[in-house]
Amino acid sequence: MADPSVPIRFGIIGCADIARKLSRAINLSPTASLAAVGSRSSEKAAQFAAANNFPASAKVYGSYDAVLDDSEIDAVYIPLPTSLHVAWAVKAAEKKKHVLLEKPVAINAFEFDTIIEACERNGVQFMDGTMWMHHPRTSKIKEFFSDSESFGELKAVSSCFGFSVTPDFLENDIRTKPDLDGLGALGDVGWYCIRSILWAADFELPKFVTALPGTVFNKAGVILTCGASLHWEDGKVATFLCSFLQNLTMDVTFVGTKGTLHMHDFVIPYEENKASFSTGIKSGFNDLVTGWVPKPSEHTVMTDLPQECLMVREFSRLVADIKNKGAKPEIKWPMFSRKTQLTLDAVKESVYNGSKKVEIVD
Amino acid sequence: MADPSVPIRFGIIGCADIARKLSRAINLSPTASLAAVGSRSSEKAAQFAAANNFPASAKVYGSYDAVLDDSEIDAVYIPLPTSLHVAWAVKAAEKKKHVLLEKPVAINAFEFDTIIEACERNGVQFMDGTMWMHHPRTSKIKEFFSDSESFGELKAVSSCFGFSVTPDFLENDIRTKPDLDGLGALGDVGWYCIRSILWAADFELPKFVTALPGTVFNKAGVILTCGASLHWEDGKVATFLCSFLQNLTMDVTFVGTKGTLHMHDFVIPYEENKASFSTGIKSGFNDLVTGWVPKPSEHTVMTDLPQECLMVREFSRLVADIKNKGAKPEIKWPMFSRKTQLTLDAVKESVYNGSKKVEIVD
Repeated sequence: MADPSVPIRFGIIGCADIARKLSRAINLSPTASLAAVGSRSSEKAAQFAAANNFPASAKVYGSYDAVLDDSEIDAVYIPLPTSLHVAWAVKAAEKKKHVLLEKPVAINAFEFDTIIEACERNGVQFMDGTMWMHHPRTSKIKEFFSDSESFGELKAVSSCFGFSVTPDFLENDIRTKPDLDGLGALGDVGWYCIRSILWAADFELPKFVTALPGTVFNKAGVILTCGASLHWEDGKVATFLCSFLQNLTMDVTFVGTKGTLHMHDFVIPYEENKASFSTGIKSGFNDLVTGWVPKPSEHTVMTDLPQECLMVREFSRLVADIKNKGAKPEIKWPMFSRKTQLTLDAVKESVYNGSKKVEIVD
Repeated sequence: MADPSVPIRFGIIGCADIARKLSRAINLSPTASLAAVGSRSSEKAAQFAAANNFPASAKVYGSYDAVLDDSEIDAVYIPLPTSLHVAWAVKAAEKKKHVLLEKPVAINAFEFDTIIEACERNGVQFMDGTMWMHHPRTSKIKEFFSDSESFGELKAVSSCFGFSVTPDFLENDIRTKPDLDGLGALGDVGWYCIRSILWAADFELPKFVTALPGTVFNKAGVILTCGASLHWEDGKVATFLCSFLQNLTMDVTFVGTKGTLHMHDFVIPYEENKASFSTGIKSGFNDLVTGWVPKPSEHTVMTDLPQECLMVREFSRLVADIKNKGAKPEIKWPMFSRKTQLTLDAVKESVYNGSKKVEIVD
């Protein structure tokens, strides 16, 4: 068995902007270490390593393959454009590297299933890069949902995630290129809305989804703004809006029969060391309906480590258990990714087919 | 001319629960006085007057007609079930009484046009009972919208208003009876969502609306939960959910190209003497995308008089101008009501016709 005191050694494949945040997270994590970075040029990889405080021992490679061929690498973080996910995640799995993959996990669930299959066959852990899942606020909220006296039965979710991009982004960012991140705003930010909805619904898939009319596309047909409603057998309904064409907004509201919960920074908290949410429980009015009784209350959850670091810690813990204790990979993480992707696929189908009702068949 | 120092004398037609709040508001307003109440029985009217601090001079009538026949009454407040609005609002106008009418203003815009026509022909002021329009918070927010550097162009609105009702309400409340308030949750709370959306859109009507699938009806076919998306020519989109089957939630979020604004108590503020909203302006992230720069900020607007009192004051001011100065009625108030009703009618048509796209033709 390997020495359990050795941190999980990460290789980073590609020098995307988001990889800077993850490099810091890996550096901050006691159970993980930055061991390598690969880019299409070794100069770029070296620059990235220097700019992101890689340890002197870290290796710098002029290709992605070289990272995968390095037998000292345990796990890879893949922040490549979505269209490249299936190729590189499968290759990584075949080389027995555990896979931390940026979202959206694939262009569609069919491609994602290829990734899952490769990870399963090779006994490697899969996790996607949805960081907020690992914030202690998230588990605190789950406790609130689980308390039937506080929240009751989930009835509705409403989410909105959009931000404002520059004209340069609209022209040149990979998220507006059909051959790179062809899912546009739906993949980039709609992913989070869908994830928050499924998470609140305990990952029960909706029965069907309907895109809202009025999707905004760029000239290449990539989604810049869209929305959808999601519907469950029991009458639960969720709506979301996602956009590249509005001020930064990051809302999710969960409404139950007895409780209501609001977050306005659910994906990236306003501040790194704490995050808030507000709850109303059995809210009502005073006798003359001139005020609320009880009023909602605000809750703040502190965290020593930022959420991306907690993600790295959880992923590393699972990898270490596999590596050192012969544990099996935790299958809930690829399941969360897959259900998010399946729902996103259904929304996309509705978007491109005149808002038709699309049933989700798993 | 009448003596301008005499307050506007209100008669109340019907002893609905909401009339208690309005009675207090009229009592609190220096420019208005409670002059009469009419009910189907004079006992009930007398009880209501006693329980709601009517002055000793106030008259108590055993019919609605008697209030309208009283030449000392300037204006009536009509909190009757929606199906009775057209009959009593028209009668009131014919008797030259100014009309403060509870929402929804009518069963449909066709009926409402009959009311407007009667008010116009008789030179009386019309206003509906949408109280939040008169809160100083509302004008403060309008200033924010008008500042192109703070908010930019409106892109999206999301609203949710629902509350939890008792089994008794579901059986017996007039809002669940097709022959009384046949618009159900759409009329009772969806009205406010639609009003907030139109208000933010400067009362430009949407081009079309689409109900979300999954409306919940009671056995009599009255809406208990529904939702819709509203769409404008310029790509603006709004969604709302309204319900009798969830915890009290009262949200509206306005998203512009440069700003975002949240309220969680837009119809009835948590507290009577103040109301808050939060704004994000040109929101973005720090360099590593681990926090927001700038963070949104919270604003609180104080008010000496509760919003329903400010509504009575504004209505009374308009009535006094007509009565004492020969002014014309202010037409913006019936216009606001009419556009809200037209939009509500379109949503209802879509709800009852399989979420079909319903164009709004004015």
